Amino acid sequence: MGFHQIDERNQALLSKIALDDGHGENSPYFDGWKAYDNDPFHPENNPLGVIQMGLAENQLSFDMIVDWIRKHPEASICTPEGLERFKSIANFQDYHGLPEFRNAIANFMGKVRGGRVKFDPSRIVMGGGATGASETVIFCLADPGDAFLVPSPYYAGFDRDLKWRTRAQIIRVHCNGSNNFQVTKAALEIAYKKAQEANMKVKGVIITNPSNPLGTTYDRDTLKTLVTFVNQHDIHLICDEIYSATVFKAPTFTSIAEIVEQMEHCKKELIHILYSLSKDMGLPGFRVGIIYSYNDVVVRRARQMSSFGLVSSQTQHLLAAMLSDEDFVDKFLAENSKRVGERHARFTKELDKMGITCLNSNAGVFVWMDLRRLLKDQTFKAEMELWRVIINEVKLNVSPGSSFHVTEPGWFRVCFANMDDNTVDVALNRIHSFVENIDKKEDNTVAMPSKTRHRDNKLRLSFSFSGRRYDEGNVLNSPHTMSPHSPLVIAKN
Amino acid sequence: MGFHQIDERNQALLSKIALDDGHGENSPYFDGWKAYDNDPFHPENNPLGVIQMGLAENQLSFDMIVDWIRKHPEASICTPEGLERFKSIANFQDYHGLPEFRNAIANFMGKVRGGRVKFDPSRIVMGGGATGASETVIFCLADPGDAFLVPSPYYAGFDRDLKWRTRAQIIRVHCNGSNNFQVTKAALEIAYKKAQEANMKVKGVIITNPSNPLGTTYDRDTLKTLVTFVNQHDIHLICDEIYSATVFKAPTFTSIAEIVEQMEHCKKELIHILYSLSKDMGLPGFRVGIIYSYNDVVVRRARQMSSFGLVSSQTQHLLAAMLSDEDFVDKFLAENSKRVGERHARFTKELDKMGITCLNSNAGVFVWMDLRRLLKDQTFKAEMELWRVIINEVKLNVSPGSSFHVTEPGWFRVCFANMDDNTVDVALNRIHSFVENIDKKEDNTVAMPSKTRHRDNKLRLSFSFSGRRYDEGNVLNSPHTMSPHSPLVIAKN
Ligand SMILES: Cc1ncc(COP(=O)(O)O)c(C=O)c1O
Ligand SMILES: Cc1ncc(COP(=O)(O)O)c(C=O)c1O
Repeated sequence: MGFHQIDERNQALLSKIALDDGHGENSPYFDGWKAYDNDPFHPENNPLGVIQMGLAENQLSFDMIVDWIRKHPEASICTPEGLERFKSIANFQDYHGLPEFRNAIANFMGKVRGGRVKFDPSRIVMGGGATGASETVIFCLADPGDAFLVPSPYYAGFDRDLKWRTRAQIIRVHCNGSNNFQVTKAALEIAYKKAQEANMKVKGVIITNPSNPLGTTYDRDTLKTLVTFVNQHDIHLICDEIYSATVFKAPTFTSIAEIVEQMEHCKKELIHILYSLSKDMGLPGFRVGIIYSYNDVVVRRARQMSSFGLVSSQTQHLLAAMLSDEDFVDKFLAENSKRVGERHARFTKELDKMGITCLNSNAGVFVWMDLRRLLKDQTFKAEMELWRVIINEVKLNVSPGSSFHVTEPGWFRVCFANMDDNTVDVALNRIHSFVENIDKKEDNTVAMPSKTRHRDNKLRLSFSFSGRRYDEGNVLNSPHTMSPHSPLVIAKN
Repeated sequence: MGFHQIDERNQALLSKIALDDGHGENSPYFDGWKAYDNDPFHPENNPLGVIQMGLAENQLSFDMIVDWIRKHPEASICTPEGLERFKSIANFQDYHGLPEFRNAIANFMGKVRGGRVKFDPSRIVMGGGATGASETVIFCLADPGDAFLVPSPYYAGFDRDLKWRTRAQIIRVHCNGSNNFQVTKAALEIAYKKAQEANMKVKGVIITNPSNPLGTTYDRDTLKTLVTFVNQHDIHLICDEIYSATVFKAPTFTSIAEIVEQMEHCKKELIHILYSLSKDMGLPGFRVGIIYSYNDVVVRRARQMSSFGLVSSQTQHLLAAMLSDEDFVDKFLAENSKRVGERHARFTKELDKMGITCLNSNAGVFVWMDLRRLLKDQTFKAEMELWRVIINEVKLNVSPGSSFHVTEPGWFRVCFANMDDNTVDVALNRIHSFVENIDKKEDNTVAMPSKTRHRDNKLRLSFSFSGRRYDEGNVLNSPHTMSPHSPLVIAKN
């Protein structure tokens, strides 16, 4: 059975949700992952393989966590020191979560924000990662068909998390390079109007702060503009602050929690924060998602819904102990931010030397790389061509801007924290040779090289249909990376 | 804010799902838990407190698990022996799950079924407990408004898991004591017709085998009748086999997986199994839910949806090692079943001596106790009165049949595996005194004692509105247990 086609038999048997492709696995974003899976780089075993730079992972600080665990065997229910608690923890099924876990998370979230705000543990609600947490919030706020305004470019997973099973809609708030992709009141109003004209009920605005894919933080004024906007329209503001501990240089991060406390006339019941330990602590496998809402009913209902995706009590117990250790948390946060910053500085400095600039950023585990000058023409078709060359020839899996629904072609998100220093060097060398080669060429742009043309015959065919902009919903698929059966296909980022 | 009322402000802000009470926390089922929370039994600190017999938990076999973990420090990523794997496991975010986890689960599920069937690891899909897994299957199969036929009495959580966010409907297949609550073809057809008359599209049948609350297993013939029925109507059959390793005496458990393999003309694509380690291994805190579907598209879509509620990789890793240990699994399964059986035998024998009979059962961690002879009259009002006396006077939190949507009043589900031997003795003694007292009375039935009447004034008031049967959707609420703010309210069972 093909990846797209559902056979006739199942057309009759399954739900509309199962029949559509709401999961979005065949966006270019996921395709890149599959390319990597087929030919993964390894320094010794496969030095010419694809380097994974599409994975927004933070692998820079594991040693600190491992070190802490080594020194605290009592924190685990699987050590001789902790086994006596095994029974009570394995049995624990209260959807409020372990009290010590909620306290520790609230404390950690406060520290991440420099201690400038306090979080109330009784408002901490669990979810299956930020993925599960964000879907839960949408289920609480929106009926099918209702719309949320989302500044683009945005995290591609939102198409799955916010829309798929909830049947809510996303209306893009278009941002572009002219003002460093900042969200403006005008852009918000245009999107709001567009939704109204399409007869959609707008239920809220969703931002990611710090931004994925931009790596930038929202400034205080923009946050206030957003609060004023949602106040005026009496709609919700959901802030995904999953990258908050990756901020590595000025300006400091301002959480919406600070704005809520400081701004007069802020309707608190409209404000909701999403959080997770997948990025800030680099623990995506543990599926720790958090909803922090200022709305009592949302807290209560989201908690009831959390029954569908609670955090394993084994994991809660370990993290409760770790994140209650004030010393550890302070050191971890300082050191983690320092390491992300150093990696960022090193990476962007080298790119700079090659004449490649990135959006000036202060957070995140990626850069937003400007390759506009390499495009044959300023279209998403040209962006896709360049992207396929980068994947197939340069052997770097980066993510094209189109997969984040950006309106302007030529930007790429490049992750830099999911690898060691040597791999970064290999990647930088590859980029260097690539750029050098181009600069030798006459027109200084990249088109599909003839070798690739020949090999990817089917691909070229599909290209002829793909002149339209990604914005119009046109998604390309690379046939050789389409296997849905690969045991290595990874769900999300 | 009251537990029922959502203030006007939020009426305008939230989704229909958030506004309704689909979670069902104010059914009597959950009320009983709250009563326990307010006054929990403790042998020394609160010997007169309420004993929790409403919790379908298996606490009889923890020592074996703890023992295994003690001997296998390498199985945990938090021990010196396992720490080197911390990074790769904490980072692991493939929604297929760790290959060794899927293999181990498939192997375990096969062994639970006496090795009579093999499960294909590539069909193992994770969910946040059976709770998350069952919702996911419904999202795959049903559109809002579509109906599933569910034999009653049934697990009260189904009203939340199958209906709340999916907007699917449940049509009850009425079973009663006259044939030991067995599902018949006639009852299935009646329910199917009822749904059709109500203009509902029937999408499937959902059974729990072994049954919660009955503690009985489906015989081969009934399973074949079910498969024939879903084949004829071309609808799905979902089998929740979460209690499969609690079968403790003949007849042996027959899984739908065996029927699928043996029956000619079985449309495999209609069959789906739900599983979890919450009961069979007594690990509800770990949130390990499993979907095993014979339908390829359901496998693929459910796996994509599992992103909303994956099993923590820390937990996957531990269980992969434990359940790959064939010796351990064999011994665990034999001993666990033996212990459940012994507890059951002891409990029912004592009840028998007091003249209390239970439905003859061979599985589960509860009995289905027949107290019809104690009812003032054969109504659900009388059942609720008796239930409140059992909770408030006898101080046992048992679950009234009405909370499982049974059609016949006078049955109670009593859990026996979530406590130690001494607590069982206390519970049995209390039941003994209670029954003795009744037998001294003239009419040998139970009505609300005057003391309770006086105390629960509001309660009595609400009683005057509650002559209708539970079947009609009338749910009573005990005011003193209504606090939604108790930090101890437990989500599910
Ligand atoms: C902005 C954003 N939100 C949410 C997520 C999902 O994170 P989690 O692993 O906690 O589900 C990601 C992961 O890439 C993300 O970048
Ligand atoms: C029949 C049945 N299905 C599902 C569940 C939910 O189990 P889990 O803890 O795996 O979500 C229960 C729990 O009581 C149950 O009895």
